[in-house]
Amino acid sequence: MKIGFVGLGQMGSHMARNLLKAGHEVTVFNRSPEKAHDLVAEGAARAASVAEACHGEAVFTMLAIDEAVENVTLGQGGIVASLRRGAVHISSSTISVRLARRLAAAHAAAGQRYVAAPVFGRPAAAAARQLFIVASGEESAIKSVEPLLEAIGQRTFLVGQEPERANLVKLSGNFLLGSVIEALGEAMALITKAGIDRQQYLEMLTSTLFNAPVYKTYGRLIAERAFEPPGFAALLGSKDIRLALEAAEDLRVPMPIASLLRDRFLVLLAHGGGNLDWSAIGELAERDSGGRGA
Amino acid sequence: MKIGFVGLGQMGSHMARNLLKAGHEVTVFNRSPEKAHDLVAEGAARAASVAEACHGEAVFTMLAIDEAVENVTLGQGGIVASLRRGAVHISSSTISVRLARRLAAAHAAAGQRYVAAPVFGRPAAAAARQLFIVASGEESAIKSVEPLLEAIGQRTFLVGQEPERANLVKLSGNFLLGSVIEALGEAMALITKAGIDRQQYLEMLTSTLFNAPVYKTYGRLIAERAFEPPGFAALLGSKDIRLALEAAEDLRVPMPIASLLRDRFLVLLAHGGGNLDWSAIGELAERDSGGRGA
Amino acid sequence: MKIGFVGLGQMGSHMARNLLKAGHEVTVFNRSPEKAHDLVAEGAARAASVAEACHGEAVFTMLAIDEAVENVTLGQGGIVASLRRGAVHISSSTISVRLARRLAAAHAAAGQRYVAAPVFGRPAAAAARQLFIVASGEESAIKSVEPLLEAIGQRTFLVGQEPERANLVKLSGNFLLGSVIEALGEAMALITKAGIDRQQYLEMLTSTLFNAPVYKTYGRLIAERAFEPPGFAALLGSKDIRLALEAAEDLRVPMPIASLLRDRFLVLLAHGGGNLDWSAIGELAERDSGGRGA
Amino acid sequence: MKIGFVGLGQMGSHMARNLLKAGHEVTVFNRSPEKAHDLVAEGAARAASVAEACHGEAVFTMLAIDEAVENVTLGQGGIVASLRRGAVHISSSTISVRLARRLAAAHAAAGQRYVAAPVFGRPAAAAARQLFIVASGEESAIKSVEPLLEAIGQRTFLVGQEPERANLVKLSGNFLLGSVIEALGEAMALITKAGIDRQQYLEMLTSTLFNAPVYKTYGRLIAERAFEPPGFAALLGSKDIRLALEAAEDLRVPMPIASLLRDRFLVLLAHGGGNLDWSAIGELAERDSGGRGA
Repeated sequence: MKIGFVGLGQMGSHMARNLLKAGHEVTVFNRSPEKAHDLVAEGAARAASVAEACHGEAVFTMLAIDEAVENVTLGQGGIVASLRRGAVHISSSTISVRLARRLAAAHAAAGQRYVAAPVFGRPAAAAARQLFIVASGEESAIKSVEPLLEAIGQRTFLVGQEPERANLVKLSGNFLLGSVIEALGEAMALITKAGIDRQQYLEMLTSTLFNAPVYKTYGRLIAERAFEPPGFAALLGSKDIRLALEAAEDLRVPMPIASLLRDRFLVLLAHGGGNLDWSAIGELAERDSGGRGA
Repeated sequence: MKIGFVGLGQMGSHMARNLLKAGHEVTVFNRSPEKAHDLVAEGAARAASVAEACHGEAVFTMLAIDEAVENVTLGQGGIVASLRRGAVHISSSTISVRLARRLAAAHAAAGQRYVAAPVFGRPAAAAARQLFIVASGEESAIKSVEPLLEAIGQRTFLVGQEPERANLVKLSGNFLLGSVIEALGEAMALITKAGIDRQQYLEMLTSTLFNAPVYKTYGRLIAERAFEPPGFAALLGSKDIRLALEAAEDLRVPMPIASLLRDRFLVLLAHGGGNLDWSAIGELAERDSGGRGA
Repeated sequence: MKIGFVGLGQMGSHMARNLLKAGHEVTVFNRSPEKAHDLVAEGAARAASVAEACHGEAVFTMLAIDEAVENVTLGQGGIVASLRRGAVHISSSTISVRLARRLAAAHAAAGQRYVAAPVFGRPAAAAARQLFIVASGEESAIKSVEPLLEAIGQRTFLVGQEPERANLVKLSGNFLLGSVIEALGEAMALITKAGIDRQQYLEMLTSTLFNAPVYKTYGRLIAERAFEPPGFAALLGSKDIRLALEAAEDLRVPMPIASLLRDRFLVLLAHGGGNLDWSAIGELAERDSGGRGA
Repeated sequence: MKIGFVGLGQMGSHMARNLLKAGHEVTVFNRSPEKAHDLVAEGAARAASVAEACHGEAVFTMLAIDEAVENVTLGQGGIVASLRRGAVHISSSTISVRLARRLAAAHAAAGQRYVAAPVFGRPAAAAARQLFIVASGEESAIKSVEPLLEAIGQRTFLVGQEPERANLVKLSGNFLLGSVIEALGEAMALITKAGIDRQQYLEMLTSTLFNAPVYKTYGRLIAERAFEPPGFAALLGSKDIRLALEAAEDLRVPMPIASLLRDRFLVLLAHGGGNLDWSAIGELAERDSGGRGA
């Protein structure tokens, strides 16, 4: 398929590359153009503007924050203004439920189609085409971009036609990840102060009941206090928890662990930790207990 | 080996049976004697008192609460008073760190040995010999009872000589399980109120990042609101969170998710839910959000 | 002085009346015009639009939510478009810090002046001219409207020139009030379940250490479970806690009691309590404990 | 009356002095005897043991922790063993509900009477005879010691015959005080980071809605960060919150602010702050926000 790809960050560059590898004709755009160099060398076309990335059957967006997605989609010369009728905007960014609703409405009004397709997985998973995709939107629209989704992930989960559903699911997933980080941080603070070896403790957890990738990944980062460089920055994790709380507030669902995570991120950010990996909140319980970093 | 087994509840009866099956000579005791019937029919000897279960090289205890363990161990005609010098008390109950210390000291004073060996796993895992055992105590003592531990579990993790360490690790593990339940409960409340299918959501979670037994087990219980009969009663889960908080307080480690879990259990107990499965706290977020049960 | 007054709700109507009584020439506007009847009978002029209320030296706004204030101030035919150069907009609504900044900037750009003057006190205090006013803004602007502030309150506190400061102080005050409500609710739930008389308990508290109007007012509402009619609706209280959290987030200040209050209000709203007095969150601890309303 | 007084700390010495001044015949005992010097010089008799302080019609205890009260009351040569039949033990310490029940039962079994009479007020109030007393117990017993209570406080509140009720009320009162401290700490952290003057802010609060001694006292300590010397040590405040939570747990009443206070005290204690005034937890929000002390 002939497609565009807007947003070549830690995740997007891998996704665009996998689309290229799968044989699609990909025109890429990034605000800082140097991030497109490698992809162009590998066969991608370079767009000089968002509009130039909108000449195909579909365009992906993979950007860090609501404001950026809103801008490239609804702004002057943006996707809504540029995409042909019937073409599909595949929005893979982790954006708010509120913005997802607005984008879907704007595309519908312009005779275009909108598919929410946020992904689960860190950069290494994106590179390895191992992402999990959660998609929502009109059935025929999703069907028409299936080959694209297959090119970037290992499996796609459909969660309904309302376009914002996939975003809510994605936010709820990040909330669950944040909960794992915080709970591990508290447990580690406890056993560390009792003199128990952190690595051995983690090995025990992850070879028994908690035998899942997330416990291994985040357990290791916390046990080794390895928060740099970030796989997913605290500033972005903080934003996702805020968006989950906003969606929960709109639905009137109290989520006390999410409230706690919000407060933890504020502590981390107030102490200059915005560019650490978001698992760095897993060290705050230890700091509170008078341990390392206190 | 010639051993005793005190406490034939949902967990203990399976563990005693597996010891019998492995060829050990097992004398069993339970306060309500009828619980020993089946085991006696399968070859166990019946003890008329705790003391009579203490004539071998080792004796297991598997009881629900601190008070019961304290009573059979330190009370008149109890294990400390009855065990021969050098014999081993294997304490598999989930007891407090404080009590573990007192029991170890009492046995040491009496020339006996104490091994803490709490287990992870619900009754089905106990039946299938799939328990994970966390053991702490003097190395030679643990070594001498290895065949017994092998008979009841799939793997044993050693966490040091201080006898209370295994108990702290066990309590921290139950805290982590409780955190999973609460986090799943909040996420389910959120997506349910947005109209997303709970089973489909759970399938997505557990076939991707949260591909671990605990998410499957507890996710299913919460998604189906299947809290009866209890695999592990809320009254006991509540007790374990209290003991985790007590241990954390003694070490001066604040654990805010544990504080939240404590409050959740109080709500459940105040509403008569003590005999539901402990995953029933996973429904409180939904109730707070005005959903089922509100 | 010749002034306008926009917003004749439970608070605004009393404030406008006191301005009239103090001899000022007041032109009033309210979206639902019938609320102006009494004031017009008492001597106020009726404006048919916001613009018509902007012909004097100053105009008050006293509206319930950010959106309303934003609309009457920045919208077409609004205050910024209508006020003469040098005239003062006195904004007494409890609005967000973010909006206060935007309003001040818009007025400055139009050569007008902006004074933030939110008030503390419930409708009875407004009627009795017993409000406390917190004011921020340019000194000369505040000075020029002093006679107006004196006409509506018992005392004015100046907190600096940055126009949003008064709003932050107001939001922090409502946070403190919310904390009092929640703490009283928890204490009442405790002593009630122990069989102690609520009224007697309250009398003891408020004649000793907690001898302050807020404990008397809110203590009585909670003790008597008298949440209707609302003096200050839960929907508005909830909004103020949200704005306090938003301001705290912008400043990176974690406020865990505010997070708890947010969750309490969500429970109340999810159960249809938005139009109860905001002190109704003081009943949730009792409900959680299995008492009245459980 | 002829009475004894056990426990001459910061509070007890002032209370004993006021009993002396009121004309009572007071025999005093303190574990560290030098604390009795001044009182003996002023006319008190010195007891060489707890038992010697038990020869009159009543004996007060004013000690810091449960263990001390339990020991002097139930231990060998203690009050139960020494008091004459019909005499009254007036227990003014802030003890647990559980211990109060046990003490009352022991005295009843020995034909003695037990009055719980905990007090509200810091040392200066004790010196000035300005304490508030909360009393529970058998009516005739309270009546018989009325002159003694009048000698130490400005007012006595009766809360029923069950002897533990006064202790529950006292613990709930300390919980409310702790809530004030935490809420003020969060509000101060917020306005401080916005550049608003703390003293001016406090003056505004305490001359308006929060015009109560507790806001003045604790507001000043927090605003000035004046946590030494302690009027009431964090170790003791922490203990009282723990006892309030224990009582609430026994009654199955979740108190989320109390859980938060417990965690705050753990942070303070983990950082060596046990001997600061308990209002020092009011600085933790500021520290979390990256301000002073971070």
